[in-house]
Amino acid sequence: MKGIRQLAEHLDISIGTVSRALNGKKDVNEDTRRRVLEAAERLGYVANQSGRALRKGSTGVIGFMMQTGHEITGQGDTFFMSVFDGVQTVFARHGLDLVALLCSSEEDPDAYLERVVARGFADGIMLSATRRVDHRFTLLDRRKIPFVSLGRSLTDVGQPFIDLDFEGMATRVMTRLATRGHRRIAVLRPHDDLNLGHVFLERCRAVLAEHGLVLEDDLIFNAAPNEAGGYRIGQDLARHSNRPSAIVVLNDGSVTGLFHGLEAAGLTPGKDIAVIGLHSPQARYLSPRLTCFDLSLRDLGIALAETLLASMPAYAALYPNAAHRQLWPMTLIDGDSG
Amino acid sequence: MKGIRQLAEHLDISIGTVSRALNGKKDVNEDTRRRVLEAAERLGYVANQSGRALRKGSTGVIGFMMQTGHEITGQGDTFFMSVFDGVQTVFARHGLDLVALLCSSEEDPDAYLERVVARGFADGIMLSATRRVDHRFTLLDRRKIPFVSLGRSLTDVGQPFIDLDFEGMATRVMTRLATRGHRRIAVLRPHDDLNLGHVFLERCRAVLAEHGLVLEDDLIFNAAPNEAGGYRIGQDLARHSNRPSAIVVLNDGSVTGLFHGLEAAGLTPGKDIAVIGLHSPQARYLSPRLTCFDLSLRDLGIALAETLLASMPAYAALYPNAAHRQLWPMTLIDGDSG
Repeated sequence: MKGIRQLAEHLDISIGTVSRALNGKKDVNEDTRRRVLEAAERLGYVANQSGRALRKGSTGVIGFMMQTGHEITGQGDTFFMSVFDGVQTVFARHGLDLVALLCSSEEDPDAYLERVVARGFADGIMLSATRRVDHRFTLLDRRKIPFVSLGRSLTDVGQPFIDLDFEGMATRVMTRLATRGHRRIAVLRPHDDLNLGHVFLERCRAVLAEHGLVLEDDLIFNAAPNEAGGYRIGQDLARHSNRPSAIVVLNDGSVTGLFHGLEAAGLTPGKDIAVIGLHSPQARYLSPRLTCFDLSLRDLGIALAETLLASMPAYAALYPNAAHRQLWPMTLIDGDSG
Repeated sequence: MKGIRQLAEHLDISIGTVSRALNGKKDVNEDTRRRVLEAAERLGYVANQSGRALRKGSTGVIGFMMQTGHEITGQGDTFFMSVFDGVQTVFARHGLDLVALLCSSEEDPDAYLERVVARGFADGIMLSATRRVDHRFTLLDRRKIPFVSLGRSLTDVGQPFIDLDFEGMATRVMTRLATRGHRRIAVLRPHDDLNLGHVFLERCRAVLAEHGLVLEDDLIFNAAPNEAGGYRIGQDLARHSNRPSAIVVLNDGSVTGLFHGLEAAGLTPGKDIAVIGLHSPQARYLSPRLTCFDLSLRDLGIALAETLLASMPAYAALYPNAAHRQLWPMTLIDGDSG
């Protein structure tokens, strides 16, 4: 792959002339123009888009940063891809390309984003997996790069965000379980510093207190957000000396594993222990039917893209009604598991 | 976001001096260096990585082009994310970042890749969803961009590839079904021009011929590679006037839908109709247990990454034993469905 400099050296013509020839400027004579185009084809010339981008202020690319890794996406992903489906329908209107920035869980997300920013290939960034304190917001704000986040953080630089309404979910699920007589209620959350776990637990505690209940520390389980993580918790619950009568599962990837872990230990969800989770394609055919919170991931992606574009000068006028900050509601689907 | 030119103009210093200050060169006096770094911080300076890349010949990014879209990844993806898991473990050794180039099914893949190449932000490309005739190989070859493809094509520019061994799968599955007395065997494949469908059907025909059987045209079903696509075929089979006794499903996304479509119509897989498919996380808990072909997607990702690196001058010496072209074997897992 050759750049304009190598092309100019090869032809022994100035870079300026080569550039004018490539860009079809009239002040280059026809012979020169043909020589340049032929050499460009033969040598595999590639325009330095980032240089062009700095001049035009636009690369046409939006990056969506997501966490990957053996435990997280090693068995696939049924969340982000569905969100991307919505994001891409919006970006298609403007000829914007979406690229997924895959940040391995082995990596420091801040350092990763620093690298992405240094490459300068994206006009805007979408963040996910927001942490309690998240330096990525500060970085992008300081670098004046438009961004939106899927998720909140204590770090606040005035960034636009959309987050799932975990408070609403906590209120409904804990009220439901408490009024149905459950006294010992467990929560299964991802084992990391994601902000959503804190938000959810805090509201759960407040709602349970209204019913004279507490969320016991030994009933807060952490697991990898996957099948195996859920399975292990199912087995742990079965062996628990003072087993809770209900568990709320905060990540969609571990619900099927939990069901199978419980079943393998002879426990039936909805009979021996109430299980309430988040919807996922895998959860669709669980038996008994999963009581769960659901949302349209495609619509979420659409809203996320529109919120980002509303923060970018080139598109803002087209999205006057896009929310700057929004909690996305979830619907409770009644099943037989809790 | 500011570039070096704006920074130099703002400070009224030459670009060369600003560049030397930013890069910590010794010939810039301390005061100037501090002024430059302060202004860079304040104005949100972003290095033009692509310019740097042209000089160093390396961006540190590898792009993996995959097809997305409502019908394809709208319900998530359990294939590519698992492959990425393997790819990233190899790239991590070299500090290479993997980005997923999400090409919407509404887009012409050739035009999409042209844009990606013009941006010049990747050192190498990994292709998937290879078509019968695929111009992307020609494009990358002409531009001298290292690449590997997951999948074959009639288009041959000497590219390295790894493809699943669909011939081996066809041989084993058709031999199994024919020797078990099946005479009318159906195939469900994705409804597009992917190369794998052609390769698979061709071998199926040859194997069936050895048993004095033919693959009837009306038993070749096409469906979107998802739950709904499989469900519809299940219903179609139930209504079929001369129903086949077996069906082989070539995409992992539609097997669970097919099971549920058959069941909704009162047919039991493995009893009323044999079903053999590809393994997927969703298929794991199907009842009756799915007879299927399985492979380690993570190991496939590792091999794919090593094959790509073996074709890149900077890494070739480290991967002397990487296969240039390889058919990846699949294991038949005996279930109860066929």
